[in-house]
Amino acid sequence: MATTTSAEPALDSEADGLYAYGLPHQKHWKVVTSKPVNYEVRFRSGLLDPGDPTLVSAGAPASHIPQRRLLVVETQVHALYGERISAYFSARSVAHEFCVIDAHEQVKTMESVFTVVSAMDRFGVPRRREPVIAFGGGVLTDIVGLATSLYRRSTPYVRVPTTLIGMIDAGIGAKTGVNFERHKNRLGTYHPSLTTLIDPAFLRTLGQRHISNGLAEILKIALVKDARLFGLLETHGTRLVEGRLQSVQGGVGKGVAEEVLQRAIHGMLEELQPNLWEHQLRRIVDYGHSFSPLIEMNALPELLHGEAVGIDMAFSTALAHRRGLVTGEQQSRIRQVMRALGLPLWHRTCTPELMARALDETVMHRDGRQHIPLPDGIGFARFVDDLGHTELAAALADLVPRGSMARETT
Amino acid sequence: MATTTSAEPALDSEADGLYAYGLPHQKHWKVVTSKPVNYEVRFRSGLLDPGDPTLVSAGAPASHIPQRRLLVVETQVHALYGERISAYFSARSVAHEFCVIDAHEQVKTMESVFTVVSAMDRFGVPRRREPVIAFGGGVLTDIVGLATSLYRRSTPYVRVPTTLIGMIDAGIGAKTGVNFERHKNRLGTYHPSLTTLIDPAFLRTLGQRHISNGLAEILKIALVKDARLFGLLETHGTRLVEGRLQSVQGGVGKGVAEEVLQRAIHGMLEELQPNLWEHQLRRIVDYGHSFSPLIEMNALPELLHGEAVGIDMAFSTALAHRRGLVTGEQQSRIRQVMRALGLPLWHRTCTPELMARALDETVMHRDGRQHIPLPDGIGFARFVDDLGHTELAAALADLVPRGSMARETT
Ligand SMILES: NC(=O)c1ccc[n+]([C@@H]2O[C@H](COP(=O)([O-])OP(=O)(O)OC[C@H]3O[C@@H](n4cnc5c(N)ncnc54)[C@H](O)[C@@H]3O)[C@@H](O)[C@H]2O)c1
Ligand SMILES: NC(=O)c1ccc[n+]([C@@H]2O[C@H](COP(=O)([O-])OP(=O)(O)OC[C@H]3O[C@@H](n4cnc5c(N)ncnc54)[C@H](O)[C@@H]3O)[C@@H](O)[C@H]2O)c1
Repeated sequence: MATTTSAEPALDSEADGLYAYGLPHQKHWKVVTSKPVNYEVRFRSGLLDPGDPTLVSAGAPASHIPQRRLLVVETQVHALYGERISAYFSARSVAHEFCVIDAHEQVKTMESVFTVVSAMDRFGVPRRREPVIAFGGGVLTDIVGLATSLYRRSTPYVRVPTTLIGMIDAGIGAKTGVNFERHKNRLGTYHPSLTTLIDPAFLRTLGQRHISNGLAEILKIALVKDARLFGLLETHGTRLVEGRLQSVQGGVGKGVAEEVLQRAIHGMLEELQPNLWEHQLRRIVDYGHSFSPLIEMNALPELLHGEAVGIDMAFSTALAHRRGLVTGEQQSRIRQVMRALGLPLWHRTCTPELMARALDETVMHRDGRQHIPLPDGIGFARFVDDLGHTELAAALADLVPRGSMARETT
Repeated sequence: MATTTSAEPALDSEADGLYAYGLPHQKHWKVVTSKPVNYEVRFRSGLLDPGDPTLVSAGAPASHIPQRRLLVVETQVHALYGERISAYFSARSVAHEFCVIDAHEQVKTMESVFTVVSAMDRFGVPRRREPVIAFGGGVLTDIVGLATSLYRRSTPYVRVPTTLIGMIDAGIGAKTGVNFERHKNRLGTYHPSLTTLIDPAFLRTLGQRHISNGLAEILKIALVKDARLFGLLETHGTRLVEGRLQSVQGGVGKGVAEEVLQRAIHGMLEELQPNLWEHQLRRIVDYGHSFSPLIEMNALPELLHGEAVGIDMAFSTALAHRRGLVTGEQQSRIRQVMRALGLPLWHRTCTPELMARALDETVMHRDGRQHIPLPDGIGFARFVDDLGHTELAAALADLVPRGSMARETT
């Protein structure tokens, strides 16, 4: 520990420690420390195979062969996989209880968090030894992430994402959250699961619209940083949707689905790792996420998260095109891929006023700056900070289908 | 970024980065990073003097001379200091709004957190620029700490503790929290304010019982690590309570109150700094906090936090005495100081059953171990992990006033 000195070093330049300065009458202290955070993401097929110890041992201290687990499972996932999940834990002699909850955007609330907390209380979750395991889409893992983050000021959990959004985005970062008074993810924390286990087999039962929804986030990564990934989507888009990203043995595009998933995960983690707490508010992964939060909340329940992100990406591409950052040909290719992936380019609630308001709210969330990532060619992004309302309206007009424009203006 | 290697290093031994391993079919990634945390605690008398810029500039980026502040103030504090606070910000041309809330143990709930969050929404708190300022006791700062922690997954705040507990404990650490379903601080986060500003003048209006309440936490620090502080309490106890820890110019014990406050703060910060997230669950600052959470919640609203802590300390001292860690004479001195500080040594709800249950709950909170700090002489502590129910009952019998024992057993 350092003690009284005459000069006060700047807070940031210090090694961890407690520093005390000042005269007795105006004494002051600086606490300088850092929190180490480590987590892992595993691609693992056959996760529910009783012969595979991965799921029971995930996040448990090696010395503590786990005997108990609380499993928080989304209703639909429970209906489809509940028996196999239970059989898995029984086969491995792990006592387990289910907490089955609905989890979709309209119930992404603190009430749902409390339901999980009460289940944790009833189960008697100790401080560190018995990670809660979350099975479900992004809404479920965001809720369980927040519940475990708050419980005893943080308890460990494991995520098993069962949707595509969960596997390549919601389930692999640190963010948790719920909506509050119609504001998207207004309340949340940064609390990654110790381990995220990704078994693409869960996608077999996922509705096609939700596959498209997830592909929106994959397209995002492709557009801002991975031209090869864009190429894979361009070549195999429709088949990826229809085949639900399963790597069919001997089928067309064998290995493609796996490469798409892994490139998306890798690209996302590369962006998250150095900026896990978003100290840096210029984030290329915010591409598609500048206007979409308001669009999504406003169109609820019509648009899914990825669909709102898709509309934002189409809109941002139009903005980029107007600024000469993407050519007309590139814009057409991007739109073509979006159509192949089953993503909308526009929604009738998107008025110039809404887009302007969305920009204002994003500026507040980015501490007074726009920091809007726009595509810069395909596979690269750059930030702009000077978008004006006229420009937004013009770019929107580029997107609006002719018929609906007429409908709106007459 | 590191890439595929054959051997997987242990997670903990890694430098920050993203690590990817494995065959394409069972690929996995490790995210290794750390979150820097810096905050400061300033002892500052004359905080509401319009000539002092400390309060307006606290936590604000140097480039942003602050123009707006949301002030969350506890009802009673607002009644006593609201006008002076408002005059201070007006004099410094800072637009400000008050969010005045009740804050005591019974309303230490998520509902109160939501009230603050709604006020933040109405005020339009941006991500980082305009720290919310919290004025009040430990309950208020714990609530505002949690609200700002959750809002946009963390926004900055400044604490101005107005109770003694706030100044030397609740207001200077990282913990935030609220009660949930009668469990003390069951939900919370680690989110220190950027700056805590301590002006002992606020104590002038604090009820004497709340002064005693805070002195319990100061006594804790003295007993586990600061024999000189114990000496100060032993010599000046009654006068400190009556004088509300004001450093009276020329009075008896001039400078004593300041030294007591500063030693308590320093001692507490020394314990918190290396263990801010409680990765280490053997904490000497848990002295007085092993049995008290349940005692406090059970006796609510009769016992204050520090009073429950006092009972726990008296009880732990009795346990220590039985184990030969403190002599009979030391135990008498400790009890004598407690009486001088106005602290109870026992409460009628403390039955052997309650103490046993309190121990069980603490074991859950300490991940399966007791980790009970006991005084080891005066100014030192040690941990025990093998307390049994008979021993608890015997130590309790040492504390119970004769009359009430008779009353209970007949
Ligand atoms: N935390 C983050 O970093 C992050 C990142 C991106 C998105 N998100 C959040 O994720 C949410 C969207 O997630 P989502 O798209 O997974 O939606 P979702 O969680 O609402 O799941 C969609 C639906 O799929 C069903 N389902 C889930 N798995 C299934 C399966 N294997 N088979 C059949 N049906 C299944 C569920 O019943 C659910 O209704 C949004 O709230 C968004 O804010 C969070
Ligand atoms: N976060 C932490 O690390 C931490 C540490 C210790 C205690 N705590 C928490 O702190 C809480 C206890 O805090 P507390 O003792 O400050 O109680 P408190 O916040 O309930 O305040 C006590 C009362 O004092 C009144 N008051 C406040 N300032 C005043 C002033 N200057 N003049 C007159 N009246 C005033 C208020 O009306 C309030 O009712 C507990 O909930 C405890 O869990 C938290």
